[in-house]
Amino acid sequence: MRIAVLGVGLIGGSIGLAARTRAGASVCGYDPDPDVRARALSLGAIDEQADDIAGAVAGAEVVFIAAPVGVLLSAVTEALAAAGPDCVVTDVGSTKRVIAGVGADERFIGGHPLAGAEGASVEHSRADLFVGATWYLTPAQGSTAGVLYERLHRLLGSFGARPTAIDADTHDRLMACVSHLPHVLANLLVAQAGGLLAEEGAKRLPAVGPSFRDATRVAGANSAIWTDIYMSNRDALVAGIDELLTRLHEVRGWLSDGDAAAVGAWNERARGEREALLGEGLTGGPVYELRASVPNRPGVIAEIALALGRAGVNIVDMALSPSEDNRQGVIALWIGGEDHAARAQELIAGLGFPVAHA
Amino acid sequence: MRIAVLGVGLIGGSIGLAARTRAGASVCGYDPDPDVRARALSLGAIDEQADDIAGAVAGAEVVFIAAPVGVLLSAVTEALAAAGPDCVVTDVGSTKRVIAGVGADERFIGGHPLAGAEGASVEHSRADLFVGATWYLTPAQGSTAGVLYERLHRLLGSFGARPTAIDADTHDRLMACVSHLPHVLANLLVAQAGGLLAEEGAKRLPAVGPSFRDATRVAGANSAIWTDIYMSNRDALVAGIDELLTRLHEVRGWLSDGDAAAVGAWNERARGEREALLGEGLTGGPVYELRASVPNRPGVIAEIALALGRAGVNIVDMALSPSEDNRQGVIALWIGGEDHAARAQELIAGLGFPVAHA
Repeated sequence: MRIAVLGVGLIGGSIGLAARTRAGASVCGYDPDPDVRARALSLGAIDEQADDIAGAVAGAEVVFIAAPVGVLLSAVTEALAAAGPDCVVTDVGSTKRVIAGVGADERFIGGHPLAGAEGASVEHSRADLFVGATWYLTPAQGSTAGVLYERLHRLLGSFGARPTAIDADTHDRLMACVSHLPHVLANLLVAQAGGLLAEEGAKRLPAVGPSFRDATRVAGANSAIWTDIYMSNRDALVAGIDELLTRLHEVRGWLSDGDAAAVGAWNERARGEREALLGEGLTGGPVYELRASVPNRPGVIAEIALALGRAGVNIVDMALSPSEDNRQGVIALWIGGEDHAARAQELIAGLGFPVAHA
Repeated sequence: MRIAVLGVGLIGGSIGLAARTRAGASVCGYDPDPDVRARALSLGAIDEQADDIAGAVAGAEVVFIAAPVGVLLSAVTEALAAAGPDCVVTDVGSTKRVIAGVGADERFIGGHPLAGAEGASVEHSRADLFVGATWYLTPAQGSTAGVLYERLHRLLGSFGARPTAIDADTHDRLMACVSHLPHVLANLLVAQAGGLLAEEGAKRLPAVGPSFRDATRVAGANSAIWTDIYMSNRDALVAGIDELLTRLHEVRGWLSDGDAAAVGAWNERARGEREALLGEGLTGGPVYELRASVPNRPGVIAEIALALGRAGVNIVDMALSPSEDNRQGVIALWIGGEDHAARAQELIAGLGFPVAHA
C-alpha cells in the first residue's frame, strides 16, 4: 500500500513509522520545511520525500494530512485535487467541523487520534504512538464511500489504534466539554489565584491542596497549538461556556440563599456522576481509589509499584500529592477491579503505609 | 503540658497522638460519642477521656476543637467558658471567619491544618499526620496575647507542622480560590459531561484526555464534609464564583469575536502565571516537567521510580495518563531543580522510554 503523509512532525512522523513498520506500507512524505522532510527521511519515518503536495499524493491510496489548522483547509483541498478517484484523504485535527466543508467530496474522511504527545517534532515520532488510542473518524452523513472508510479503518487498526466513528458535531461538542473547557478553566484558575496573590502583595502561593494542582496542570498549554484549537472550535466552546455559566449561576444561587440541602444534593449527584464516568467511561471497568500516606522520599513510589507489580496488580492511574516541603504526601492509586483493589490495599498496608479506600 | 482535644476523629486523634508522642504532653479527650472516646483511649490517641467539654478543658493549657462546623461555635463558646485565663483555645476548621465572632476573646486563635486525610475516623489517626504540613493560624488583629500565640506555635512546630499566620479574611478568600472553587468546577464538569452523554443517548464517555480526569478528580467529595465547607465559606465562594464569571465572560467574548490574538495572549499569560505558581508556590523551588511514554504494565512505574531513587532524584509529583485500554500511557513527572530533571531525563531515556521536557 502506498501512503502519503503531509506534514511530518510528531503525528505525521509517527503515522509514517507505523505505516512502514506495522502495515508494511510505502510512505511518501511532504513537509513545507525541507529540513524537516530530510530529518523524517533519515529517521525512517518516510521512504521518500516529495517537493510538493501533488508529488507526495501521486499514486497514494491513503493520504494523511497532519498540518496546522491555519493551513489545513488549503492542504486538504490541494490533496483532493491531486488524489486519484480511489484515494482516501484524512486529517488529524483536534476539531472536526472546521473541515466539514470538504465533506461533499466523499474521498475525504476527517480524523482525530487521541494520542499523547510528549514533544512536537519528528524526532519524537514513534511507531507505537497510536497503540490503544482512540482514533475518531468523522465520515460525512450518508457517505457511500464504504470501501474508502474500510481501508482507512483497517489501516488505523494495524497501527494499533481504535478507529471510532462519530459525527463531527458531536465530536466537537464532546471535545469542548472534556478537553477545551478544562483547559480554559485551568487558565482562569491560575489567573484568579495570581490576582489574589498580587492583591495581597504576596509573591508565592502559600500552601495549596491537590485539587488546585490537578485542576491547573494544563494551564498555559502550548500557545500556538491551543490558540488554534480554541479558535477552530470556538462556537462549540462558547456553547460549553454558556452551559457552564448557567450551572455556575445555579450553584451561586444556592450558596447565596444559604440552601445547604440543595448544595448537598448537588454534590451527591456529582459523586454519582463521577463514579459513572470514572467507573465505566474513563477506564473501561469499575475502578477503585485507594489513598495511602507515604514519606515523600526517593524510592517510596518504587516500593509500592514493585509490590503491586509483583502481585500482578496494575495501577490504572495514580497521583501523588506532596506536602509543601516534599517530606511526605498522600498517594492516590486507581486500581481496576475489586479483588485487585483489596489486594493492593493489603500489600500497601503490609509495607507500613496507612491506606484506605477514598 | 496538659492538652484537651474536643472531637477525636482523624484530626483530633492525630493531634492527640502527636501531642503525646512528639510533645510529651498529657492529653484529655472528649467526644460526644462515648464509643469514639473509648476507641481513642484504647488507640492511645488520648491519655484520659472526659464526659463533657468542661471536664476535658479543666486545667488544660491548650484546647484543640476538632468538631464539625455545625457545632463548632457552641463548642468554642463552651470551651472558652470552661478554660482558665492562661489557656489558648484553637480549632481546625477549613474556613476561619465563621468563628471570627469569638475573636474578641483573646484566648481564641483560629487554626486550619492542611493535612491529607485518607479516612475520617480515629482509626486513621497518625502521630505524623502534620509533618511538613502548613497549619494556618488566624490570630485576631491587634491581639496582645503573644504568650498564647507563641505556646500554640511551638506546640504545632513540635508536631512537625509549619504554623503560618494569616488573617481570617485572606485565608477564606484563598481557600475559596484554590480549593473550594476547583471542587465546584469539578462537580460542574462531571455534570456537564454527564448531560452531554445523556443527550447523545450514550452510556459512557468515549475517550477523554488527562485534562478532564485531572480537573474532575475531586468531584463529589464527601458530601457531609463538603456541604459544611461550601456553606461556611459561602460568601467568599460566591465572590470567587463572581470573579470567575467575569473572567469566563471575557474569554467568551474573545472566542465569540474570533479574536485569536487576545486568546493567544491570554493563554500565554496563563503559562507565565502557572510557572510562577508551580515554580515557587506549589513546591518551594523551580520544578521541571518531564513526559515519558511507557507501556502501562505492572512494574513500569517501579522501574522508573527505582532508577530515579537510586540516583537520588526525588519525584515531586507525578501523573500517569493511561490509554483507554491501559496498554500504554504517558507519565508526567515533576522534578525539582534543573540538574535533577536533566539526570531524570537521561535515566528514563536509558530505560528505553521516549521522554521529553513538557
